[in-house]
Amino acid sequence: MTVLILTCEEDVTADMVVVHLNASGVPVVRLDPADLTGSVALSGEFVHGSFRGHLSSGGRLVSIGGLRSVWVRRPGTPAARAAAPSAWLTEESTQALYGMLRDCGARWMNHPDAARRARHKPWQLRLAQRCGLPVPATLITTFPRAAREFAERYPDLVVKPVSGTHPQDPPRAVPTSRVPPEADFSAVTLGPTLLQRRVAKRADVRLTVVGDRLLAARRATGAGPDTDEVDVRFDPSDEPWRPAEVPPRVAEAVRAYVREAELAYGAFDFAEDGDGTWWFLECNQSGQFGFVEVDTGQPIARAIAEWLARPGNEDPAPADDARSTAR
Amino acid sequence: MTVLILTCEEDVTADMVVVHLNASGVPVVRLDPADLTGSVALSGEFVHGSFRGHLSSGGRLVSIGGLRSVWVRRPGTPAARAAAPSAWLTEESTQALYGMLRDCGARWMNHPDAARRARHKPWQLRLAQRCGLPVPATLITTFPRAAREFAERYPDLVVKPVSGTHPQDPPRAVPTSRVPPEADFSAVTLGPTLLQRRVAKRADVRLTVVGDRLLAARRATGAGPDTDEVDVRFDPSDEPWRPAEVPPRVAEAVRAYVREAELAYGAFDFAEDGDGTWWFLECNQSGQFGFVEVDTGQPIARAIAEWLARPGNEDPAPADDARSTAR
Repeated sequence: MTVLILTCEEDVTADMVVVHLNASGVPVVRLDPADLTGSVALSGEFVHGSFRGHLSSGGRLVSIGGLRSVWVRRPGTPAARAAAPSAWLTEESTQALYGMLRDCGARWMNHPDAARRARHKPWQLRLAQRCGLPVPATLITTFPRAAREFAERYPDLVVKPVSGTHPQDPPRAVPTSRVPPEADFSAVTLGPTLLQRRVAKRADVRLTVVGDRLLAARRATGAGPDTDEVDVRFDPSDEPWRPAEVPPRVAEAVRAYVREAELAYGAFDFAEDGDGTWWFLECNQSGQFGFVEVDTGQPIARAIAEWLARPGNEDPAPADDARSTAR
Repeated sequence: MTVLILTCEEDVTADMVVVHLNASGVPVVRLDPADLTGSVALSGEFVHGSFRGHLSSGGRLVSIGGLRSVWVRRPGTPAARAAAPSAWLTEESTQALYGMLRDCGARWMNHPDAARRARHKPWQLRLAQRCGLPVPATLITTFPRAAREFAERYPDLVVKPVSGTHPQDPPRAVPTSRVPPEADFSAVTLGPTLLQRRVAKRADVRLTVVGDRLLAARRATGAGPDTDEVDVRFDPSDEPWRPAEVPPRVAEAVRAYVREAELAYGAFDFAEDGDGTWWFLECNQSGQFGFVEVDTGQPIARAIAEWLARPGNEDPAPADDARSTAR
């Protein structure tokens, strides 16, 4: 049984996982859907009530029925590097590849449907609320009056994108920013705007979930709690990430979240306030983990490799792995 | 409780359904996501563990919690008609709108996740097989050798797109075509190719599923069974569609299909062979139905309106509606 990794060629994070898979002797096929109709080929036959499908990459052939797991890491756009690329060829290749892989019986990290759903920020906020995670008061609106009323109730606000990364070329992260007092909200009519009560944080927390394993890292906030720099990605502090313990209630809520979201992998971002409360900010179903592993020594790549390598289709809950330590 | 219809402005098929909803006094809000940040506005607040969301269209305000159903008919690209459209604004608006509507408690025809999954032809073929529908032998491949071997086993083949409609502007339907004997298959390396055993058909069947109701229509094939014109959409025959009875085994299999696919609406296309067997060709989760209703008098629009108007979130199975007749 083979592990299939869908990712682009230059993905050192995937390399980290492949090292562990190779070390344990698990067969791996790695391919980039962008190479379809070039070095990647596919075939599937639906005859007499049965289906037999194959993928080949760089001359290696793998049976779709023989996949134990599929890791959707950073796949390129199907057929993007074909000899004569086109929107039509991409559409045909997308439908053929993902259409065959769907319901192939393998375990997914993460299944495309779950991944797609999990990207919706409003959906994340509601699910986090339902699972019992504290969520800072949030408004998404195109109504200036709603924004003004919200700012009266919560005078210390940040503004951030609803969707994440700006799709310019190359893509650009849009920083979360503080909203100045007396802000003019008339421009929210121009596009949905996400306003959120600012958490006066003393640390950022990144909680990486791999199957049932929770690996948390914490990074003390460099500046004071009243800094204008609220986005950890742009924080100039050189504080390292350090392993952290997950409070049992958070562990329970996070497990409920990934269970309901049907995610095998998720990178949760929390802001830790002065009372030690972890406020849910977001869960990125394809969040990077390399920087955390480098700083903390936490075995995230190995955990992913172990999850991908497991033979069965079952997800047995390990006895107790809520506590994350650098092993 | 309101019915929300997401569709473009000029959609006479939606008009047919709205007429029935209006006649029964059910509140309807119809909006096109393309009008977001113009005549369509949205707002959602996540405070103290609860969510309150609103949409407004043309000045009418509707609570997201007060939606009984959502009909995703032919929605435009979010914010496509905004004053300053951009890929970023579309992404933000898509996430905001569909993110809030997800899990709103309303019944969906069809839920975006189910709709997206259901478009994959390879997935359709496997599901149809599993549900017991006869599927003509099919190959999707980029391997010329696989295509040649398939053509040896099934000499009478058609070729059709894997994905459906060509995304040119305006979009173009790509006809299903017969494959000539001794065809050269070397070009399948250039793009995934769907080959299917041709069914020597005496009729085309369109089976429209609305919740638990099955409404079938049949259209005798104009030319003989050996015609080169195999695509009903391009058939010059002026035979009308006529109501047809659904064989009990087909009804059972189709119900299993839509149940597993989580579809509230589906338009199944079958080819009826000389023995009367209905061969599954595809299930279009957003297939048109106006032409069938016009020819047959079958109350499809009314069935959709009734489904959308139902108050509860339950889907009680009607006693017996497998037999479709023009009422």
